[in-house]
Amino acid sequence: MAQPFRFMLNQTETESYGAFIPRNLRPLIDRAIPHARAQISGSPVVAIGLASSGQTYFGVNVELPGLPPNYSIHAEQFLVANFALHFELKLIGLAISPNGYYFKAPCGHCCQFLREISNMSDTKVLITGPTGQGETHGTRMLLSTFLILLGTISPGNVPRLLEPSDNSIGFIDSSLQMDICSNSEHCNHLSCRALRAATKSYARFSKCPSGVALIDRRGTVYSGWFMESVAHNPSLGPVQAALVDFVVNGDGQEFKEIVEAVLVEKRGAVLSQEDTARMILEKIADPDCVFRVLHCEYN
Amino acid sequence: MAQPFRFMLNQTETESYGAFIPRNLRPLIDRAIPHARAQISGSPVVAIGLASSGQTYFGVNVELPGLPPNYSIHAEQFLVANFALHFELKLIGLAISPNGYYFKAPCGHCCQFLREISNMSDTKVLITGPTGQGETHGTRMLLSTFLILLGTISPGNVPRLLEPSDNSIGFIDSSLQMDICSNSEHCNHLSCRALRAATKSYARFSKCPSGVALIDRRGTVYSGWFMESVAHNPSLGPVQAALVDFVVNGDGQEFKEIVEAVLVEKRGAVLSQEDTARMILEKIADPDCVFRVLHCEYN
Ligand SMILES: [Zn+2]
Ligand SMILES: [Zn+2]
Ligand SMILES: [Zn+2]
Ligand SMILES: [Zn+2]
Repeated sequence: MAQPFRFMLNQTETESYGAFIPRNLRPLIDRAIPHARAQISGSPVVAIGLASSGQTYFGVNVELPGLPPNYSIHAEQFLVANFALHFELKLIGLAISPNGYYFKAPCGHCCQFLREISNMSDTKVLITGPTGQGETHGTRMLLSTFLILLGTISPGNVPRLLEPSDNSIGFIDSSLQMDICSNSEHCNHLSCRALRAATKSYARFSKCPSGVALIDRRGTVYSGWFMESVAHNPSLGPVQAALVDFVVNGDGQEFKEIVEAVLVEKRGAVLSQEDTARMILEKIADPDCVFRVLHCEYN
Repeated sequence: MAQPFRFMLNQTETESYGAFIPRNLRPLIDRAIPHARAQISGSPVVAIGLASSGQTYFGVNVELPGLPPNYSIHAEQFLVANFALHFELKLIGLAISPNGYYFKAPCGHCCQFLREISNMSDTKVLITGPTGQGETHGTRMLLSTFLILLGTISPGNVPRLLEPSDNSIGFIDSSLQMDICSNSEHCNHLSCRALRAATKSYARFSKCPSGVALIDRRGTVYSGWFMESVAHNPSLGPVQAALVDFVVNGDGQEFKEIVEAVLVEKRGAVLSQEDTARMILEKIADPDCVFRVLHCEYN
């Protein structure tokens, strides 16, 4: 079991490391690297994001041994999910580094995913040369520089990723409703947490929101929701999003400490997460992990 | 059942449409669009690639209803798999269009995937404005313009995607060997085809090559192999690659005509395709489709 790591710095801690420049971020990268879970590639990556709230967030890459590489969570996506978990609305600065020496652009997969975030016109990305260890400030590039080449965005009049959303999900049949508290806003039941997660899901293309809640052996609950990319494949699945919560708040435990999981998704969804969620959990969670699916209606 | 479509134009046909410019490609895009399988998004995309052999290839997007969007095949990736199936070595020109009106850059996911192809320094991408229907020639941009922003490539001394490779795969135990002909170079047995596919797999990071062969109700065999991306998620799975062969050579049949499938992969692979392959086939193939896995050794 890895040592716990805090994936967020509050405003005071953020002010104390100073400007968002490579020299100041290197020690933070160094501290985060051991918490990447890169058992397949052996190549840890850390992403650091400065939020408009004045807080700093971390992302690390997470690979799922035994599964194809398509299930991996990139450090940049982990960071976005971490922002979403904390209801951060805006990314001001982004720094990505595999080793603390140099800072690089988001990969293509993540550039595509990041297009779902609105209000990025002045988001800066820190870049250094490949042998950038001597660079104090690096270069600040607009994130939009990387995204603009990928074509135009037509957001439409719907909330974008990281904007507050409520999918108004309701359970379809009364037998299932009994799983959910009448006032489920604050309770910690696995079904209620998964339902709340699903209501926050970003699924504006497929209209198939979903959420997952996990519980570990100690009784701590984690949750996450599906975040869709218009380009399909860069979408972050609901299990992966919940694993981000687990890595952030699970004190460094391994995934095999997960003993129960609930998925909430739309009944008869054209994009069903059910079989994929079950398969991922069979690979990484406790072998006796109980997995339940609750189907909901989505208006 | 859709009408059959030829996903390749020979040298004579390529010469007859003339220069690789939007005006000449629009009729080809129009003909290809109905053969995209975009049941989830409702947004067909066509990619056209000019090969150094003088032949022209098509790619369409393929979505797999019932599964999360991460399993989709982009038109650009379909095109690369089509090149690989025909042992084409070099992409000279690339044109991507959702409607024949305008031509756009590869998406971020595909830009990342395309980085695996070597010898792209002079590959041109056709671009028009978003209302480009009047544009005869469009703009030719170097594909490297899109890729260069995503950071440096360090290919190393191994064959890259679309270069000939031989993974020297052998079956581990004698019971399994009986499935494979002594001279399996040209036979059409499902196991032999899957093994041959696996030997062509591009898996230079994980060293976990894999291949899939499918057979339809009529007895036609299709195959494809895993093509790995250094960024993990944009990798093309072996089932998806075999589905490209099925779409290209299956006379427009639906996937439920697939009645048997074989996956060849490394025993104990850190990246196992087995469960994912089974799940995809359960969703799209004939409900009674037989799925077998043969484990091999990889040196
Ligand atoms: Zn990435
Ligand atoms: Zn409750
Ligand atoms: Zn694409
Ligand atoms: Zn044979």
